[in-house]
Amino acid sequence: MKNRKIILTENEIPDKWYNIMADMPNKPLPPLHPGTMQPIGPDALAPLFPMALIMQEVSADKWVEIPDEVRDIYTIWRPTPLYRAYGLEKALNTPAKIYYKYEGTSPSGSHKPNTAVPQAYYNAKEGVKKIATETGAGQWGSALSFACNHFDMKCEVYMVRVSYDSKPYRKIMMNTWGADVYPSPSNRTEAGRKILSEYPDSPGSLGIAISEAIEVAASDPDTKYALGSVLNHVLLHQTIIGQEALKQMEKAGDMPDIVIAPFGGGSNFAGLSFPFLRLNFEEGRKIRCIASEPASCPKLTRGIFRYDFGDTIGMTPLLPMFTLGHNFVPAPIHAGGLRYHGAGVIVSQLLKDKLIEAVSHSNPEVFEAGILFARTEGIIPAPEAAHGIATVIAEAKKCKEEGVSKTILFNLCGHGYFDMKAYQDYFEGKIKEHVLSDAEIQASLKELTTPEIA
Amino acid sequence: MKNRKIILTENEIPDKWYNIMADMPNKPLPPLHPGTMQPIGPDALAPLFPMALIMQEVSADKWVEIPDEVRDIYTIWRPTPLYRAYGLEKALNTPAKIYYKYEGTSPSGSHKPNTAVPQAYYNAKEGVKKIATETGAGQWGSALSFACNHFDMKCEVYMVRVSYDSKPYRKIMMNTWGADVYPSPSNRTEAGRKILSEYPDSPGSLGIAISEAIEVAASDPDTKYALGSVLNHVLLHQTIIGQEALKQMEKAGDMPDIVIAPFGGGSNFAGLSFPFLRLNFEEGRKIRCIASEPASCPKLTRGIFRYDFGDTIGMTPLLPMFTLGHNFVPAPIHAGGLRYHGAGVIVSQLLKDKLIEAVSHSNPEVFEAGILFARTEGIIPAPEAAHGIATVIAEAKKCKEEGVSKTILFNLCGHGYFDMKAYQDYFEGKIKEHVLSDAEIQASLKELTTPEIA
Repeated sequence: MKNRKIILTENEIPDKWYNIMADMPNKPLPPLHPGTMQPIGPDALAPLFPMALIMQEVSADKWVEIPDEVRDIYTIWRPTPLYRAYGLEKALNTPAKIYYKYEGTSPSGSHKPNTAVPQAYYNAKEGVKKIATETGAGQWGSALSFACNHFDMKCEVYMVRVSYDSKPYRKIMMNTWGADVYPSPSNRTEAGRKILSEYPDSPGSLGIAISEAIEVAASDPDTKYALGSVLNHVLLHQTIIGQEALKQMEKAGDMPDIVIAPFGGGSNFAGLSFPFLRLNFEEGRKIRCIASEPASCPKLTRGIFRYDFGDTIGMTPLLPMFTLGHNFVPAPIHAGGLRYHGAGVIVSQLLKDKLIEAVSHSNPEVFEAGILFARTEGIIPAPEAAHGIATVIAEAKKCKEEGVSKTILFNLCGHGYFDMKAYQDYFEGKIKEHVLSDAEIQASLKELTTPEIA
Repeated sequence: MKNRKIILTENEIPDKWYNIMADMPNKPLPPLHPGTMQPIGPDALAPLFPMALIMQEVSADKWVEIPDEVRDIYTIWRPTPLYRAYGLEKALNTPAKIYYKYEGTSPSGSHKPNTAVPQAYYNAKEGVKKIATETGAGQWGSALSFACNHFDMKCEVYMVRVSYDSKPYRKIMMNTWGADVYPSPSNRTEAGRKILSEYPDSPGSLGIAISEAIEVAASDPDTKYALGSVLNHVLLHQTIIGQEALKQMEKAGDMPDIVIAPFGGGSNFAGLSFPFLRLNFEEGRKIRCIASEPASCPKLTRGIFRYDFGDTIGMTPLLPMFTLGHNFVPAPIHAGGLRYHGAGVIVSQLLKDKLIEAVSHSNPEVFEAGILFARTEGIIPAPEAAHGIATVIAEAKKCKEEGVSKTILFNLCGHGYFDMKAYQDYFEGKIKEHVLSDAEIQASLKELTTPEIA
């Protein structure tokens, strides 16, 4: 009997996160204050984040110790298994060897708790009583609810109203872990009330929900704010994924030629790929790391590298990133976690320096990939994860055409148990591609008044 | 850092199932033909089941080899982890040590694939092209869809209409694995058409769905039928759970004093407990094995031991079992997997011989237990699984009162990701106890015309 999974023991959970900033040939440009256009320092973030996380955000240390309390909660679902995808390989009749790291074993069903737990921990340690956050599809809100519950902190989630109404089960999941969930826009904040007075039936947006959560955090000294992707400390925490995968690949006696992960704001991709990029930096290896994004929200493949706001409304510092413009509104797709206009600054700099690659996939292609995976490997992937699978299939087919055996590793970042409606829409022929014209992208980018980058 | 999980390697997956029939002091009485009242032989089952499963149904061999092809598919989610419930122990402030075996890691989210996979395998090996089955809440239908897909067999699921309408996501899950799912009663069978002609708006029942699936199997030589609990071969396959748990308890340097599992038809309970009962038989140990059933469907705690039909309509052979009467209709509860009027014959005989115990829990008590578990251990349990947790909490509290440290092991048979509506109902105060009067039970039992057992 062939071994399908490569398993680590709890004692093999890494005890440090890897900070790629230390190894990057070109460091990201600093964030700018949108009023003064001057670089902002750590203090500017103090109302929103605990100091420990701000220090991680700007840290140049290559390794950051994982606190024992965090590793202890990690053991609820970590180490996660690494699978050899025998079923998928057979179906594709490819000479490629395909492996995947499965992050769907966490209680909230995705990789998000990898950062939610340390974020909750550092907040609790600094005496914070409540964390406010936003959530779109619900993955991040679920993960943070789970994490706050473990440190006896309150969690207040502003959930985009259209999701709140259409995905009630994500809300109940958060309630089960003790969180309070409000549809956004709500009448609990000035930002929310302002929107509601103008648009009483507003379906909400991630931008509005961010504004509400930030307002709650900024106006109460016992409350902080938390973000589920994009920021450097979030990417840092997610490197637990790739570090485990590296140990597991070594146990399998193999090493990936290609590392693939879905791309929303960057934490999923960074989590798996950065520990392998480290080998490129340290040992001169040439592991290709490919980010998979939706064709309907193609910031990496069709956006520009420029200073832009991290949110839709323009409350954050300006960040140097690949962006479609903060006013860009992607077509509604089921991979809610990938509908973000920009990319985190580290990943953006890496792409600009051609140290990583990016590809995009159409919506129907993504669901075909997800269903093929479910039927050959058994696990039903989240639509976000299926983007990575589409890239894997494309690369595995290329191996077949070229008659070469490459080793491919990808991040199966979550299961699809809360996304069955998406599969239903696919089966009913409702998943269409929204082909984005160059004119549409240019129109969105033209609105940008933020500084260009030489 | 304390170890939370005890993990096995794939090579440690047991290679045999344990057949408790070999060790039982009193073997179950034979099934009877309802017309002749004579014992029926294996041949009577041949239209519905492949011969390999019929032979397992009547086998007296203590150990049954697990085929490599089955173990290979088991590796998709097996071995499953054994957890030490540190969080729950702390919350209960109990001297008891609590362990749980977590079966929710399977692709369909419960222990059901443990038997769905071998059932599909033996059918495929005998050239069967399609398996027909029924499903209520959807756990069994999902598991069999997953399993049939792996052996390139068709799977036709008759899903109780009220579930089909209210739980569309379970249906889509089955579709994703390639199964055809029909609301029952359907117009595809005589049984279904007959019901529909009398009651066009029938919400369906498990009994009707069984009749449809059996009719489909009986009328097509290429189609067989499969059942997800109750039968001996189903219990046999589930012993993989307890055998793994036994190895894991040994690795932990511990041994349970009490083994607890939820009880529907018996496969969940048998799966965990039988390998520990073996130690009672072989070594004279006194491990208490407790079945947890809902107070609204209390066949073990308030039913009688008697010959009765396995289904509602009266199509099956008569089986010697603890029953509430095959016409008993339990109040609608969220633990759909536990709403069955009778108990499998092996478990019934064991209970009659006082070799196992049974307790029941009210609905609100079960949800309180489930939520306490989610908040202390992280995993949100299925309502079925939460019945076992309620028993665990009761036993752990008893340990505290008595000041003794016992070791408790229970079966966390599935996660609650598809049951969030149940938690919503609890939070909204809609989960009430249906107190069953003695008169109600007597009324149901009085309808029985089947033979009594001396």
